Amino acid sequence: MPAQELEILESHACFGGRMARYEHPSRHCQGPMRFAIFIPPHQPGEKLPVLTFLAGLTCSEETFMIKAGAQRYAAELGLILVAPDTSPRNTGIAGENDDWDFGSGAGFYLDATQAPWQAHYQMFSYVTEELPALIARNFPMSAGVQGICGHSMGGHGALVCGLRRPGQYQSLSAFAPVSAPSQTPWGQKAFSRYLGDDTRQWLAYDSLELLKSSGQQHPPILIDQGRADPFLEAELKTEYLETLNDPQIILRWHETYDHSYFFISSFIGEHLNFHARHLGAVPRSPAHD
Amino acid sequence: MPAQELEILESHACFGGRMARYEHPSRHCQGPMRFAIFIPPHQPGEKLPVLTFLAGLTCSEETFMIKAGAQRYAAELGLILVAPDTSPRNTGIAGENDDWDFGSGAGFYLDATQAPWQAHYQMFSYVTEELPALIARNFPMSAGVQGICGHSMGGHGALVCGLRRPGQYQSLSAFAPVSAPSQTPWGQKAFSRYLGDDTRQWLAYDSLELLKSSGQQHPPILIDQGRADPFLEAELKTEYLETLNDPQIILRWHETYDHSYFFISSFIGEHLNFHARHLGAVPRSPAHD
Repeated sequence: MPAQELEILESHACFGGRMARYEHPSRHCQGPMRFAIFIPPHQPGEKLPVLTFLAGLTCSEETFMIKAGAQRYAAELGLILVAPDTSPRNTGIAGENDDWDFGSGAGFYLDATQAPWQAHYQMFSYVTEELPALIARNFPMSAGVQGICGHSMGGHGALVCGLRRPGQYQSLSAFAPVSAPSQTPWGQKAFSRYLGDDTRQWLAYDSLELLKSSGQQHPPILIDQGRADPFLEAELKTEYLETLNDPQIILRWHETYDHSYFFISSFIGEHLNFHARHLGAVPRSPAHD
Repeated sequence: MPAQELEILESHACFGGRMARYEHPSRHCQGPMRFAIFIPPHQPGEKLPVLTFLAGLTCSEETFMIKAGAQRYAAELGLILVAPDTSPRNTGIAGENDDWDFGSGAGFYLDATQAPWQAHYQMFSYVTEELPALIARNFPMSAGVQGICGHSMGGHGALVCGLRRPGQYQSLSAFAPVSAPSQTPWGQKAFSRYLGDDTRQWLAYDSLELLKSSGQQHPPILIDQGRADPFLEAELKTEYLETLNDPQIILRWHETYDHSYFFISSFIGEHLNFHARHLGAVPRSPAHD
């Protein structure tokens, strides 16, 4: 099925479907990008909704597919899962590998405007335009039927993509999102270097600000947040979203859960059910061979 | 709950229960050993059956808990999951880290008899005696109610432990086990160095030979094997087990599946159900907070 534009890195049977990783040349990021995809069991010719998952700092396109245990639910619900990498890699930009919270593995899902990063770090356009078009060309994607989900930096990314492109995504969800990056250290470090010192430019990538200005006109949002998350107080500020009293946001607090994929795996089934409902996915019995 | 003998390395809420890793001094292995454990949601004072999972070459006590997606099923079924490391580590034995298929990460779940390995590599006694006793002392384990499962080298380990200690385990299962290690390269390399050149000594750690001599008097066994497994022909020889026509062995072939944890995750739920049934586990509704 995949055409020449995709190089396959690995492929495995999984829950009656197939999980694979690919590399392709990216127009927006001006270099090779990688993503993982899970195609659930389906009928020939059948088109399926797509749920994109954006991972957090230090992760890659592999992390979600290995750690979250989502394929089992996606197989039952008939959802394609797509997991892009968290940044361009090996761009040659000096210092790209110096920090774990900036550069490689930390693209923050924005379109950088500042040199030298703007030449490659165009993750917002990559995730919202280039990658979905690539998926639609090469896999049995139901055109225009998409949800987006993410964790931590990727939770920020999922909310920002969905809030800025409300016509493109029918459902949004996040685990422990960086909710107000303009006000917190990871976000301030990244935004100042990717977007520059004019903090007005930052607001276009700040979920709290986007939600304030949305007039509650946005796709339905599900957010899970652990109270034992060590990043909650300094970096996430998930409680700020609660102050919006937005009926389109379901924010669930979990007393004992932390920031790990053990938290994500515990609730990913409920997120997939939430997206499947809003995307009109057609549940099926898992068909192991 | 854990007493002084255990040092906790990490702990996470997971599916309404808790997943943790510990280090402890091992009497049999003469040094520190690590294991991971998942305790499902349970009532105060309730005792639960234990399923031990033995991982394959190059893996550690972390692999299964991160990649297999088993906690979800264990939470529903009321099973404790225990995953030991695959060998002693940092013993100081010369060459222990030289090979990926021998020494560190490759203990083969046997009691070595040959110098210098016998001083530390006592994984059979560790897994069947020391570790279950440690678990029983420190966690809500139902005494004497145990199953054992494993993958590849760990599938070999699970079958060998269960066949040599049939009174101790009520159910055995394996994914893609090294079924006849006396006849295949990984096994021959390991057995010759851990057990010496007298191949009669190898038979005590060879599942095929143990099954032949068991007179079909052993706990029920479930085995899953993918036909797309690249190690099947040279290293696993799972088809040899079919020739035994043993009604106590359920051997299932899967056309498209390979040797990866994507294969394991696809069928781990059925393995946990198999063990739960034989161990008399009491299913429960997952109790997220």
